Amino acid sequence: MASMATYFVKTPSPSPSFPKTFNTHFSPALRLSIPLSSKPRTRRRLRISNALIEPDGGKLVELFVKESKKGEKKREAASLPRVKLSRIDLQWVHVISEGWSSPLRGFMRESEFLQTLHFNSLRLEDGSVVNMSVPIVLAIDDAQKRLIGESTRVALVDSDNNLIAILKDIEIYKHHKEERIARTWGTTAPGLPYVDQAITNAGNWLIGGDLEVIEPIKYHDGLDRFRLSPAELREEFTRRNADAVFAFQLRNPVHNGHALLMTDTRRRLLEMGYKNPILLLHPLGGYTKADDVPLSWRMKQHEKVLEDGVLDPETTVVSIFPSPMHYAGPTEVQWHAKARINAGANFYIVGRDPAGMGHPIENRDLYDADHGKKVLSMAPGLERLNILPFKVAAYDKSQGKMAFFDPSRQQDFLFISGTKMRTLARNKENPPEGFMCPNGWKVLVDYYDSLVPADNGKVPEAVPV
Amino acid sequence: MASMATYFVKTPSPSPSFPKTFNTHFSPALRLSIPLSSKPRTRRRLRISNALIEPDGGKLVELFVKESKKGEKKREAASLPRVKLSRIDLQWVHVISEGWSSPLRGFMRESEFLQTLHFNSLRLEDGSVVNMSVPIVLAIDDAQKRLIGESTRVALVDSDNNLIAILKDIEIYKHHKEERIARTWGTTAPGLPYVDQAITNAGNWLIGGDLEVIEPIKYHDGLDRFRLSPAELREEFTRRNADAVFAFQLRNPVHNGHALLMTDTRRRLLEMGYKNPILLLHPLGGYTKADDVPLSWRMKQHEKVLEDGVLDPETTVVSIFPSPMHYAGPTEVQWHAKARINAGANFYIVGRDPAGMGHPIENRDLYDADHGKKVLSMAPGLERLNILPFKVAAYDKSQGKMAFFDPSRQQDFLFISGTKMRTLARNKENPPEGFMCPNGWKVLVDYYDSLVPADNGKVPEAVPV
Repeated sequence: MASMATYFVKTPSPSPSFPKTFNTHFSPALRLSIPLSSKPRTRRRLRISNALIEPDGGKLVELFVKESKKGEKKREAASLPRVKLSRIDLQWVHVISEGWSSPLRGFMRESEFLQTLHFNSLRLEDGSVVNMSVPIVLAIDDAQKRLIGESTRVALVDSDNNLIAILKDIEIYKHHKEERIARTWGTTAPGLPYVDQAITNAGNWLIGGDLEVIEPIKYHDGLDRFRLSPAELREEFTRRNADAVFAFQLRNPVHNGHALLMTDTRRRLLEMGYKNPILLLHPLGGYTKADDVPLSWRMKQHEKVLEDGVLDPETTVVSIFPSPMHYAGPTEVQWHAKARINAGANFYIVGRDPAGMGHPIENRDLYDADHGKKVLSMAPGLERLNILPFKVAAYDKSQGKMAFFDPSRQQDFLFISGTKMRTLARNKENPPEGFMCPNGWKVLVDYYDSLVPADNGKVPEAVPV
Repeated sequence: MASMATYFVKTPSPSPSFPKTFNTHFSPALRLSIPLSSKPRTRRRLRISNALIEPDGGKLVELFVKESKKGEKKREAASLPRVKLSRIDLQWVHVISEGWSSPLRGFMRESEFLQTLHFNSLRLEDGSVVNMSVPIVLAIDDAQKRLIGESTRVALVDSDNNLIAILKDIEIYKHHKEERIARTWGTTAPGLPYVDQAITNAGNWLIGGDLEVIEPIKYHDGLDRFRLSPAELREEFTRRNADAVFAFQLRNPVHNGHALLMTDTRRRLLEMGYKNPILLLHPLGGYTKADDVPLSWRMKQHEKVLEDGVLDPETTVVSIFPSPMHYAGPTEVQWHAKARINAGANFYIVGRDPAGMGHPIENRDLYDADHGKKVLSMAPGLERLNILPFKVAAYDKSQGKMAFFDPSRQQDFLFISGTKMRTLARNKENPPEGFMCPNGWKVLVDYYDSLVPADNGKVPEAVPV
């Protein structure tokens, strides 16, 4: 995978096969039926400049202890009460410490938690508002709370008791789980993946405070070099003289429908007058549910898609977004967008049912497929971000390639569902030519091949975007 | 009850027994532990003027059809598809038509519904934000939707098929009930009163649009004269030369703890430099749950409290707030506050667990008792409103009267719970002298006396604030 790192982060080179001739179109700008009194956004005219969009709060937060202070901090931590971090907690420390959640400086205290739950936003000192839709909190149980006692700071350690960070000026408050779940997911149905993984069995208290992180978080899984921080991404975009950065969040293999979308976005941005729009292809790297394709396989697949020239390396940066996944639909898509502002993106591509999933106990999607883009377009604190909704892409049999769905010739289109794609890949069959580049498809086939079937002979289902 | 109308709305006269000597105090200004980056509010210094606070959106909405147009509108309505309003729907038409929900001009369209659920606020054309925390929506079922077909307007009629209003430029969208409930109440537990009453069996579609209301809504229950609209209240406050209006929302009998709070608020406002603070004593008059004391009995009780001079008629306006009750705690208290801005109030008194209730299936309060005032203090669109949190009042045995609870002499205080009060009133016993004025107490005793016991010999429980 060195090639991907080389091509797309460090040394852009012209693509041999950039598909310049796609003749496709965006959906019209999102139009909501809004009475005079509550139009969600007065969109300012685009002004093109080479300066990247400002991070939320005006300054990118980075919370690492200076080299010269590390010894002192480690000695201090040795005498503090310890809180052990789960894998997901550690991912959140990663997220906060690099400034993805700027201006947050640590795990949320109660005032931030309540503003997040009720308003999906935080009001800053100066009266301005930043978006914040997903609670970023650390749970502790009764025994840990007793242990902490009157201490105003705690040491955060990983599962091997390695010191990760100090949390200071702490505030401990009740973890109202039912309310947190209901307000974040819009349901309390059993079977929400993040809830099962990180909330149900978590402690009954939340501990907020400011983080001092000893070392940048690393996972030593061969992928750390793709985990660029917001500061590093900003440096890369600046080095490339980007005058627009458009982010594409994904947690699934890239098929040619995605590629179509990304190349079409670039075309549109050029039409709008931008000279050098750069794509941030930004797979989510934190916790995902068991039936999603794991990060390592997705990165292999993305590598092939890039090697095969489906996307232009010169105008693409591939990096890993370290956040865990909530599967909280319209609430979570705001977080996905907001974090990318902090990484320098001023355009955000949003599709059908972003961060959605099936209802855990009813036979329907959990969220209205259109709510994600609508909520995103109206979200407080995201006014500066240009939201790019897109039409559904499907396999156009008449052209033998992925294209934006045209309802006037519905019969020409084939929708390849997650189930269909999984079945094909598991059976080592090929999808229609033009659905995904062959080497990318092979990675998927290899992934399903690598799975040990469960007792019932079924393999977990992978769900594409 | 003519006396109350006379005294408190039309002809203020000096109180014979205004308790000027209460020596009590407010809780300190609400202090939340907030990091630098997310202080919820930068409070402006108070500026005292005789102009009332502006309604949300700058102009008070009133949606009544002009006299000269009534005939035409009635003829038009005769040819439109009809939607029959429930009692609660009618209360919402009342609320919207008089401008309590300004700048809303009708039942919410989807963009407003989504902003309400996700952000508890609406963004206006000019980019400013108003608070809106509770969905004000009208549900229709599949058959009604079919009947409406392609019509752009519908006639709204009451249960006797009398024309109430025309809803125009309609938009019909899905009624995602589970999500609405979860995001509004922070729970989906069965047994939420408003949900059982108005959502569970309501249609699967919502219909939004602009209202043209034929006649002001009247209930012909002898209480209509207390139902002053925001415009009428503003006129009354102006007539009285109010330079501050402080609102007290309640849905229960007034005891001397409430009275203490209200008189103490006035004392504080005078200390702050206001010359003529007026109390808006504003019982909620719409739907309440079965075990609350009904409006007619509460109004009788309030009348006695006022006749007995517990509150000063010269500085008090008693009126009925026509909204139905959600019992949605921190979400609903924002609505209660926002609506009073529209009626001219610039101070809002908030107590412990506002709009709260017991969890319907767990043995605990549904909401954290402190969240209401915290959320209110941070709510978008309520920055202009001064929030006055208060300490718990209890019966002080050492003084023989209601007083603010002093934890340093805990043993002196008696908390008279709802259950205790009900038991006393039902058994025609008296509470400790000084808990409630005797004539007010007698109304409560009469109310319980009037109830026909259910088969199990129990009477419904009334729950005080």
